[in-house]
Amino acid sequence: MKTINYKNFHSNQEVAAEELKNHIGEVVQIHGSIYKIRHMSGFAFVLLRTGSAVIQCVYSEEEADFSLEAIPEESCVRFTALVAAEERSRSGYELHLREVTVLSVPEETVPVVINQKQVNTSLENLLNYRPITLRNEKERAVFRIQAVICEAFRAFLISEKFTEIHTPKIVAAGAEGGANIFKLPYFDKEAYLAQSPQFYKQMMVGVFERVFEIAPVFRAEKHDTSRHLNEYTSVDFEMGYIESFEEIMTMESRMLQFTFAYLTEHSAAELALLNCRLPKLHEPPQIRFSEAKQWISQAYHRPITDTTDFEPEEERLLCELVQKETGSEFVFVTHYPSSKRPFYAMENPENPSETLSFDLLFRGLEITTGGQRIHSYPAQVEKLLRRGMHPELFESYLMMHKYGMPPHGGLGLGLERFTARLLGFENVRSTTLFPRDIHRLVP
Amino acid sequence: MKTINYKNFHSNQEVAAEELKNHIGEVVQIHGSIYKIRHMSGFAFVLLRTGSAVIQCVYSEEEADFSLEAIPEESCVRFTALVAAEERSRSGYELHLREVTVLSVPEETVPVVINQKQVNTSLENLLNYRPITLRNEKERAVFRIQAVICEAFRAFLISEKFTEIHTPKIVAAGAEGGANIFKLPYFDKEAYLAQSPQFYKQMMVGVFERVFEIAPVFRAEKHDTSRHLNEYTSVDFEMGYIESFEEIMTMESRMLQFTFAYLTEHSAAELALLNCRLPKLHEPPQIRFSEAKQWISQAYHRPITDTTDFEPEEERLLCELVQKETGSEFVFVTHYPSSKRPFYAMENPENPSETLSFDLLFRGLEITTGGQRIHSYPAQVEKLLRRGMHPELFESYLMMHKYGMPPHGGLGLGLERFTARLLGFENVRSTTLFPRDIHRLVP
Repeated sequence: MKTINYKNFHSNQEVAAEELKNHIGEVVQIHGSIYKIRHMSGFAFVLLRTGSAVIQCVYSEEEADFSLEAIPEESCVRFTALVAAEERSRSGYELHLREVTVLSVPEETVPVVINQKQVNTSLENLLNYRPITLRNEKERAVFRIQAVICEAFRAFLISEKFTEIHTPKIVAAGAEGGANIFKLPYFDKEAYLAQSPQFYKQMMVGVFERVFEIAPVFRAEKHDTSRHLNEYTSVDFEMGYIESFEEIMTMESRMLQFTFAYLTEHSAAELALLNCRLPKLHEPPQIRFSEAKQWISQAYHRPITDTTDFEPEEERLLCELVQKETGSEFVFVTHYPSSKRPFYAMENPENPSETLSFDLLFRGLEITTGGQRIHSYPAQVEKLLRRGMHPELFESYLMMHKYGMPPHGGLGLGLERFTARLLGFENVRSTTLFPRDIHRLVP
Repeated sequence: MKTINYKNFHSNQEVAAEELKNHIGEVVQIHGSIYKIRHMSGFAFVLLRTGSAVIQCVYSEEEADFSLEAIPEESCVRFTALVAAEERSRSGYELHLREVTVLSVPEETVPVVINQKQVNTSLENLLNYRPITLRNEKERAVFRIQAVICEAFRAFLISEKFTEIHTPKIVAAGAEGGANIFKLPYFDKEAYLAQSPQFYKQMMVGVFERVFEIAPVFRAEKHDTSRHLNEYTSVDFEMGYIESFEEIMTMESRMLQFTFAYLTEHSAAELALLNCRLPKLHEPPQIRFSEAKQWISQAYHRPITDTTDFEPEEERLLCELVQKETGSEFVFVTHYPSSKRPFYAMENPENPSETLSFDLLFRGLEITTGGQRIHSYPAQVEKLLRRGMHPELFESYLMMHKYGMPPHGGLGLGLERFTARLLGFENVRSTTLFPRDIHRLVP
C-alpha cells in the first residue's frame, strides 16, 4: 500500500496568472489554452487563456526554441517564459516565450470565431456551440459573475443565520399549481418535478427558523419568450418569527446591497469587461399593486385591461416611472390580488382580496416573488376548501401547520433573470449556462 | 410611494440565543418554540427551542404574569425574561420567565414524541413524520452539520480557484449509462433526469479549468438498500491540467481535511450532541483494486467470485484490514477494471484493461468515485465505437474534445452517504432531509 504524499505533484515552478506580476524578471512556467495568435512583422502575439485571465505573450524565433506551427489556437500548453515588464500591456507585463510542452492539440479549427471581443453570431448558434463559445472571454465572464453572486448570497444568508437545505426535486404534488408542471413515471407511481421548494422550505422554518436553498426548479412553460426557461436556478429563502411581510423585503434589500458590494470587491475585472454598471440600492421604493396599476394607466394613458396582474409592458413602464421619480432601478410592488397568488399566501386581514405579498422588479422585469404564508392550520384548511382544493391531498404539507408554526414568509429569486438584468442582457438564455426551453434540450 | 426604512422593524430588544450569556442580570426578549415543559414541585422547567439552541427557562407563578396552560408544547412564543446565572445549567444561565406573547398554538399534540433525547420510533415512522421529527434536537443537528459540510466544501474549492456552475438536470442522454435513469416526456421529445453533471462539468473545464457543483442527481435504482437513494446531492468537481489522476485524490484529501477542521470550529455543539468522532486523515493509504481483492480473499479466506467489482461486504472488510494495518478510516482504491467504468474513463496506457480511476472508501462504504477522463477526440471516438456506442449521439459532448481539451479529471461525492458515514448512521435515509426511494415519494 502506498500513501499519498502531498508534496509529490508538480515538482514544477508553475505560477498562477494572478501572481505573474510578482515575478517580473523571472523565468516561470504557466499553463493554459492558446486563445489567439496574431502574427506581426518578425514576431507574434500569443494570447494564453488561463482559468481566470487572458495573458499577452510574445513569440519570436530568436527567443523561442519551438515553432508556432506546433500550437494552433485552442491547443493546451505549458510554457516556460520570461516575465518582462511592458508598459503598453494592460497588466504591466508580458511573457516572452522560450519553451513549450504541448499537452493537446485540437482535432479541428473551431467552427465559430470565439477569440474576438465578442462572439458575433446568433443567440441560436451561440447556444448550439455552447461548450466552445463559453470559452470567449466575455461569455465566460457572465458565469464567473454568476458564481460570485451565489457566493455573496450564501455568505450573506449564513451571516444572517439561515441554514442551507437540500429538498427533493421529485415530488408527489406541485406547490405552485397550474399546468406548467413536468410529470414523470416513478416506478408504479406518478411523480412531478418540483416547481419550487415551497412546501419544504416552509416545513424547515419549523426546524431551523431560517433556511435557504439555491437549486434547480422546473416549469413546463409552453411559451417561448425571452424571459422564460423550463429549468432555472431558484434562490429561495424562508424566515420565521416575522412581524410583517416587509421584513422579508428588508432582508432581500440587504442581501442585494451586500451582493453588489461583494461583486465590486471580487469581480471588478469581469464587470469592467462587460461594461456593467451596478445599480444603487439604498431605500428601494415600494408601491401597492393597485396603485401601480393606476399610476401606469394615468401616466401612459393606457386602459387597464387586467386588474389582477401586470402585462410585461406594464412592468417595464412602472420601472421607468419609478426611476424617473426616485432614481431607483428597483421597486417592490406589494399587496397582489389574492386571486393571482397561490393557496398558501396570507391574505391582508384588513382586505382579504389582497395578499401580504410582493414582487421585486428590477430594470423592467420581475426577479422575485415573495410574501407571508398562512401559518394557522384552520386558516390554511379553510383557504384550500374555499379554492375547491382537497386538504387530504396535502396531508404531509399541513402537518407543520397542525403541530405548530411561527408566522413566516420568504421569497424566490430567479438567478438567471437577476444576472440578465444586472448585466444588461435582453434574453435570459444569455445568462443560463445550458438553457432548456420548449425547443432546446442540447447541449 | 413608501421607501423601506431599515430600522423600522423589531422595535424590540430581542436577543439571539448565542448572545444570552452577555446579558446575565438583564431582562430580554427572545422568541422560539416550546420544546418541552417539565413540571416540578412549585415551578416548571420550560425548554425553548430557538433556531440554533434549546434554552432552559424557569416558570413560576410568582414571577410570571401568565399561565402555562396558554403555551402547550410546540407553541411559538415571544418571552420577556430575566437572564439569571445558574451554575447547574450547561450554558451557565437560565431564563426566568415574566411575560409571554403567544404567536401560535398547535392544533393538536404531536403524534410522535419529539422532545426526548432522541425520537424513539422506527425509521419508517421517523420519515413519515419528517416535518415534525426534524424538530428533535438530535435530528436537526444532523442537517445543521450537513449544511456546514457544504459550506466547508465550497470555501475550500473556491480558495483553490474552482468556479461554481449550474448545469441542467433535464438532459437528452444519460452520462453514466445503465438502466437506472428516469425518463420523462418533454413536450414533443423524450428527456431524462441527469444521473450526474459529468458531461457538463467536463465541458466547463475547457472554460474555467476548475469547476464544481453541489446539486441533485437522479438514479432510478430499483433496489431498496440502506445505501441507495433515487435522488441525492452530488458534490462534483472537475479539474484541468492534471499530470496524474493522483492529483484528484490529493485535492479530495485536502478538501476533507479542511472540512474536518472547519466542522471542529463551527459545529462543535452539534458534533458533541451526536457523539461524533471526526476521523483523522493524514496520508490516506491507496491500494490497487486487484491487490485489494487478493488481500481480502487471503485475509478472510473468501473465494473471489467477481473480479471486476467489490461486493458490499468486501468494501467493509477492506476498510477493516486497512484500519488494522494503518489506522486510517479512509482508503483510496485505484485502477478499477475498464469493463466496470464508463466510456469516458481514461485507461492506463501501461495496461488498458484497467482505468486511471479511484473510489474513496470511508468506514466500510464507497463515498466517492473519480478518475482521469479521456481528453483526446480520436481516443474518445475510438472507445465509444469499441463499446458499440454511437459517437453521433454524443455530438455536443464530443465538441469539447474535437476543439481542444486539457488532460483533466474529477470526482463525485455523495453528500448524504458521506454525512451518514461521518455521523455513524447505518442508513443513508437518516442523513437525507426528505429521502426518495422506490417506495417513498412523500413527504
